[in-house]
Amino acid sequence: MYFSQHCLPYPKVDSGDDCGVVVVNVLYGGTVTFPGICVTWGLIVMVMIYSTGHISGAHFNPAVTVTFAIFRRFPWYQVPLYIGAQFAGSLLASLTLRLMFKVTPEAFFGTTPADSPARALVAEIIILFLLMFVISGVATDNRAVGELAGIAVGMTIMLNVFVAGPVSGASMNPARSLGPALVMGVYKHIWVYIVGPVLGVMSGGFVYNLIRFTDKPLRELTKSGSFLRSISPSHKASSSKS
Amino acid sequence: MYFSQHCLPYPKVDSGDDCGVVVVNVLYGGTVTFPGICVTWGLIVMVMIYSTGHISGAHFNPAVTVTFAIFRRFPWYQVPLYIGAQFAGSLLASLTLRLMFKVTPEAFFGTTPADSPARALVAEIIILFLLMFVISGVATDNRAVGELAGIAVGMTIMLNVFVAGPVSGASMNPARSLGPALVMGVYKHIWVYIVGPVLGVMSGGFVYNLIRFTDKPLRELTKSGSFLRSISPSHKASSSKS
Amino acid sequence: MYFSQHCLPYPKVDSGDDCGVVVVNVLYGGTVTFPGICVTWGLIVMVMIYSTGHISGAHFNPAVTVTFAIFRRFPWYQVPLYIGAQFAGSLLASLTLRLMFKVTPEAFFGTTPADSPARALVAEIIILFLLMFVISGVATDNRAVGELAGIAVGMTIMLNVFVAGPVSGASMNPARSLGPALVMGVYKHIWVYIVGPVLGVMSGGFVYNLIRFTDKPLRELTKSGSFLRSISPSHKASSSKS
Amino acid sequence: MYFSQHCLPYPKVDSGDDCGVVVVNVLYGGTVTFPGICVTWGLIVMVMIYSTGHISGAHFNPAVTVTFAIFRRFPWYQVPLYIGAQFAGSLLASLTLRLMFKVTPEAFFGTTPADSPARALVAEIIILFLLMFVISGVATDNRAVGELAGIAVGMTIMLNVFVAGPVSGASMNPARSLGPALVMGVYKHIWVYIVGPVLGVMSGGFVYNLIRFTDKPLRELTKSGSFLRSISPSHKASSSKS
Repeated sequence: MYFSQHCLPYPKVDSGDDCGVVVVNVLYGGTVTFPGICVTWGLIVMVMIYSTGHISGAHFNPAVTVTFAIFRRFPWYQVPLYIGAQFAGSLLASLTLRLMFKVTPEAFFGTTPADSPARALVAEIIILFLLMFVISGVATDNRAVGELAGIAVGMTIMLNVFVAGPVSGASMNPARSLGPALVMGVYKHIWVYIVGPVLGVMSGGFVYNLIRFTDKPLRELTKSGSFLRSISPSHKASSSKS
Repeated sequence: MYFSQHCLPYPKVDSGDDCGVVVVNVLYGGTVTFPGICVTWGLIVMVMIYSTGHISGAHFNPAVTVTFAIFRRFPWYQVPLYIGAQFAGSLLASLTLRLMFKVTPEAFFGTTPADSPARALVAEIIILFLLMFVISGVATDNRAVGELAGIAVGMTIMLNVFVAGPVSGASMNPARSLGPALVMGVYKHIWVYIVGPVLGVMSGGFVYNLIRFTDKPLRELTKSGSFLRSISPSHKASSSKS
Repeated sequence: MYFSQHCLPYPKVDSGDDCGVVVVNVLYGGTVTFPGICVTWGLIVMVMIYSTGHISGAHFNPAVTVTFAIFRRFPWYQVPLYIGAQFAGSLLASLTLRLMFKVTPEAFFGTTPADSPARALVAEIIILFLLMFVISGVATDNRAVGELAGIAVGMTIMLNVFVAGPVSGASMNPARSLGPALVMGVYKHIWVYIVGPVLGVMSGGFVYNLIRFTDKPLRELTKSGSFLRSISPSHKASSSKS
Repeated sequence: MYFSQHCLPYPKVDSGDDCGVVVVNVLYGGTVTFPGICVTWGLIVMVMIYSTGHISGAHFNPAVTVTFAIFRRFPWYQVPLYIGAQFAGSLLASLTLRLMFKVTPEAFFGTTPADSPARALVAEIIILFLLMFVISGVATDNRAVGELAGIAVGMTIMLNVFVAGPVSGASMNPARSLGPALVMGVYKHIWVYIVGPVLGVMSGGFVYNLIRFTDKPLRELTKSGSFLRSISPSHKASSSKS
């Protein structure tokens, strides 16, 4: 129980910086620029993974947490606490921003589709497929390079914002979208940011597990010729024997 | 055989993000900016190497795959399956973009030379010489720092797009150019993006192998004075003995 | 005692580059851009951590040094020497910039609130809470990935400048603000950059220590399901046994 | 002797990309932007260190090579071969750019001071002091994190270009400046780019050696309290014993 309470500060800081940079960009004359927003979103996830990954597992996303539980990589009984902490953090950060700045409609720090909600939905599904695929590859597979998981996941967030930011706002996270929506009272097409992430994350996790479940024959294959075998743990093990 | 089928999703996601950011930049008022496109292209290759390198070897480029086979670092019998997956991924991603957006001629996400095809050809050859040189150095040479291979290769992609993007579009990959060309029916100077990568990659691989084949005397030389010897595995081995 | 004297050059170089890029941006027609300033500030902290961390512990910030002493992670008797070196470096760098350039009021390289001092104070507190939280997580906790501490802390600086730069100037450091203020004689709202960092750093360190003190039960919990457990040292230890 | 010949391709590719991105930026309407040039210069040095560091020691800079020889970290008899390769690479790259593009005076890819040569000289000295300090810290000192040397040195190049690019062109390398000067016949204030780097590198190396020579007492001191001790090898050694 202490765990979930201690977990509270992280998503709070996280969402606060994510959304804060959007508000600051609009209210201070666009000096941050769109690439600056992308870099900020990617970096905050990266540094949060490195500073809290060893304590809580660095779960900031309810869709990811639920999917891990489905694939038996996270205990179901902890899911409600984690999701509660994620939404509480998002709400607290949104309240902080509302108190700190005069948030004009242009500076709304939630997410709404740029044009059609269908296109935003497809964009969210695609970028979350990619995100969950990368998370599965670097964080749950022993053969991958675990130390660099934070860099890989953070940079996936960054590139997803570059690709889908102008289309859907690149929410990638139901908690990140619901917090600002509740605090500012703007619910336009909010379903896109719940349905999209859930569908994308589950399909990404499912496809990666399809590959993993056949990993024994794959190892044999990759031993013969894959050009990056030097980064796989199996290679290191063999080289340390010699 | 399962391997090649499982391999399908990666180039698809890869090319989709590469090309998608170009479409999004044009259709949504240039907010991504050219540096943003460069960053996105570099990061997608980096995260794909970290998430799939331990499974398939992270081959996204037919020119690289064939060159590895020539230098006996990849089995010939797997080459057709890999190249098929690479082109299938590129085609599926291009179709997704065409269905998702109204792709105007300005937002064409394939590659055509900015001015003369000869200059584009030279640019592609130079950047692929560099790319293959880096890949050979970090991914096939035991002495290099294997864990950081994904960062080094991804950042080479990024800088290559900065240097050659305005000249040739910085394709670096026949599959990446042929997919959009087929789907959109634009074949202008398409030969540049097949001949250039193949020539560049093969010469880069050839030059690196020239150096590697003399590595025994080199080790002796470098032991005496190279300032970066502390990052070579031989140094680590010796320090772990003490 | 030699230690503190040897420590002098680092904050000097550090602050010089931090502030110098601001001066250069204004005097040379804004070519650096605001994102360029953010990148420069983050990178200088990162490279300084990697080049001096093994010698002096890479303390550039008096607020952080004092907080470490409070939490018994730094000896009190060394605190005056470190803080002296930090302020001396800031002063020398500010003098160098004043001698090197004709510093116009627009090119002032210190920090003043963009609008209200209260908002700047809140911004400084929030970004320093985040900074100290990350420093505590990656640099003082054995379970985190120590080698990547420089990247994590440097990137936190970078994202903090993106978020709070337009609001407060993102000083994050009393020494960094006092040096330029003394050299240029501009003391407008200087208290913000002393009170803000101290409050933010202390609360960030306090919250992280709350979590750490309960780490024994946490370990048990995280063993069961955290998705990033592969990056924790405890996991490595167990895997090296097998 | 084979070594120095094999070394030729690296500075060639290196300088070619460094200078090439400047030419491309001017000739293709400034799409790369100044931050894009900074990123490119930093990344090319980073990837070259990772791909050639284990072979040749990744020496691209005559000033650095000579300084290492002075501090007995590089054998004098190899210095002429290395410097010859560095200048040959710079010349070949400059010739390639001249043949490939119609290089207008605005697109000159060498370095000239933006305003006063004295200011450019001071800027070159400061950024090379920093560069050599970082190189010494991460690449010659066993206690530092060797694997990340390429990232630290590359990112130092990047931030140096951000800080000094608008002032002096941020050459940092006599070979990088002399190649374009010879090929294009532009020798304006060329002495700045020979005197500045040599003075900066030598003072940076000298100051770092001052610190290193007292490392035995320092170790004792740092054991007591430096907050980043977890990243020093001595810490790892002791933890692996337990």
